[in-house]
Amino acid sequence: MLSFVVRNGRLKPRQKPVPRLRPGWALVRVRLAGICNTDLEILRGYHNFRGTPGHEFVGEVVRVGSRTGKERRKWLGRRVVGEINIACAGLGRARARKQCSYCRRGVPTHCLRRRVLGIVAHDGAFAEYLSLPLCNLRVVPGAISDEQAVFTEPLAAACEILEQVRVMQHSEAAVLGDGKLAQLIARVLCSAGLGVVMFGKHAGKLARARQAGVATQLVSSVRRNSRSPRQSYSLVVEATGSPSGLTLAQQLAAPRGTLVLKSTFHGAAPVETWPVVVKELTVIGSRCGPFRRALKLLRSGKVDPRPLVARVFPLREAPAAMRFAQRPGVLKVLLKP
Amino acid sequence: MLSFVVRNGRLKPRQKPVPRLRPGWALVRVRLAGICNTDLEILRGYHNFRGTPGHEFVGEVVRVGSRTGKERRKWLGRRVVGEINIACAGLGRARARKQCSYCRRGVPTHCLRRRVLGIVAHDGAFAEYLSLPLCNLRVVPGAISDEQAVFTEPLAAACEILEQVRVMQHSEAAVLGDGKLAQLIARVLCSAGLGVVMFGKHAGKLARARQAGVATQLVSSVRRNSRSPRQSYSLVVEATGSPSGLTLAQQLAAPRGTLVLKSTFHGAAPVETWPVVVKELTVIGSRCGPFRRALKLLRSGKVDPRPLVARVFPLREAPAAMRFAQRPGVLKVLLKP
Repeated sequence: MLSFVVRNGRLKPRQKPVPRLRPGWALVRVRLAGICNTDLEILRGYHNFRGTPGHEFVGEVVRVGSRTGKERRKWLGRRVVGEINIACAGLGRARARKQCSYCRRGVPTHCLRRRVLGIVAHDGAFAEYLSLPLCNLRVVPGAISDEQAVFTEPLAAACEILEQVRVMQHSEAAVLGDGKLAQLIARVLCSAGLGVVMFGKHAGKLARARQAGVATQLVSSVRRNSRSPRQSYSLVVEATGSPSGLTLAQQLAAPRGTLVLKSTFHGAAPVETWPVVVKELTVIGSRCGPFRRALKLLRSGKVDPRPLVARVFPLREAPAAMRFAQRPGVLKVLLKP
Repeated sequence: MLSFVVRNGRLKPRQKPVPRLRPGWALVRVRLAGICNTDLEILRGYHNFRGTPGHEFVGEVVRVGSRTGKERRKWLGRRVVGEINIACAGLGRARARKQCSYCRRGVPTHCLRRRVLGIVAHDGAFAEYLSLPLCNLRVVPGAISDEQAVFTEPLAAACEILEQVRVMQHSEAAVLGDGKLAQLIARVLCSAGLGVVMFGKHAGKLARARQAGVATQLVSSVRRNSRSPRQSYSLVVEATGSPSGLTLAQQLAAPRGTLVLKSTFHGAAPVETWPVVVKELTVIGSRCGPFRRALKLLRSGKVDPRPLVARVFPLREAPAAMRFAQRPGVLKVLLKP
């Protein structure tokens, strides 16, 4: 099968055999895959990952490594998305006493043995086929198109904020950043009934958010270092993907406010942390989220990510797609095997 | 009266008239004042403060700016400590509708108009006298000595952690730092029934903590950058006062753990924040705390800060005391007018 692997900061095509299945795993034919900023970080050396990147996908189950016909019948031919953290249960440790302390407590996203699709020790979706444990798969309802379903993983990450923060205690939220993830976060917070102001650098991307009912403001218009900022928010989400985001986030956060961190850029940025102390902020790191909630949002139509798609490339043009995804103004780029 | 002011990074003696009192304020003769790391930061230019520093004190009310004899009788001659944030109520705005949104909500430590004793726009305790609103004062019970009472403010700051975090959800806490504040924090967490491990750089200071029942470990013995750290804590308190503390704190924090920030060093330090996101940490900034709780701890004897006193200087030797406070191994230095 055709797949792409990371070599010296680039994607290189590689012919590989289709993955062999363990019991309880599925072989998934990828229908669409999405390019995420984490994939760009991986090209820059994040996690020293040298396999096949790609963790956003929708696909079809074409083989099941199972001993029971019932399980095969349940999954074969199904259109699915997949949770990206492969935890104890997926690694053949079904019984609680054999699991790590996080899996036992029901937090497999922090499994101490975890592999991560296309990120840590497991090949991902920039290929014709991928493999995942059945327990990671979620069936996609027929009402959701492939172009919507491929957003399930990042949309779930956006929904994680609703699990971590009681958003209705806040009247308004600031979302910092106007990129792919920030766009989804702003829509998710709007769908929860919150007023949202997106702060970004790109007029075009901000315009895209306004079409979804989000208020917007150019970062350049925020007065820096004023002693009494006219703008302050009890809830701020930092999703710029850039080291400079945290400073602005601290400035916009009201005393005793909540600041959700979503950016996972690598490299140390010079940051002053005393505002967290002096303002007594609560900073919440936020990563993967609930697929069920994301699928529900897609099905209800309350969040429609399709306007974020800039272009769909054939899989064989993955390197060009990667370059295109880094152009200014481009939001989501998809790969179609 | 003799006082000291900040000039060009140094403490200079200055003869000043005793402060004039507004109605509802008290003139306090300082009996003892403590030197805090914030005072050292102020010498380095923090807040551009050019008045008299010092915010840890115990003193005696010698005059009351009040129209009612009852209030005068209540306070005159009392031994007191004082909350350092001067908020709307203290600034003559007793009625809620004249107060800022934070004072109205009962959070005067974040008052939008606030002045801070010895830190922001109000002269502090490195002087023979200071002034504070009566509503900031707390009477010191007779069972508490001056040498204990002068620790009320930093001890209250340590107690703030008990207000912000349900410590009993954690079995053990790591306290990073072995300085003045870290020593108090470790003792407060111990007094709440928590197992505490202090991570520090100075064998002598760590020994001081062990005498109070705190387990200790040299920072140099912590294995850096290991993929599966053998040590992890669901509650970590960063009180090193140094930019490097945050990195170690993130390393020691368990996934979904809580990280309390207490350090208010200034200057931007290169920090990677992705571990907060990947581990989904909750980072809580923590500043001033409840005086009542601190006084209760002192009175009960559950926390005895007196072994932390390195030396008491006469007020007129304040500059020498400041230099002494910066020597390696020195914990609390006091000034006696």
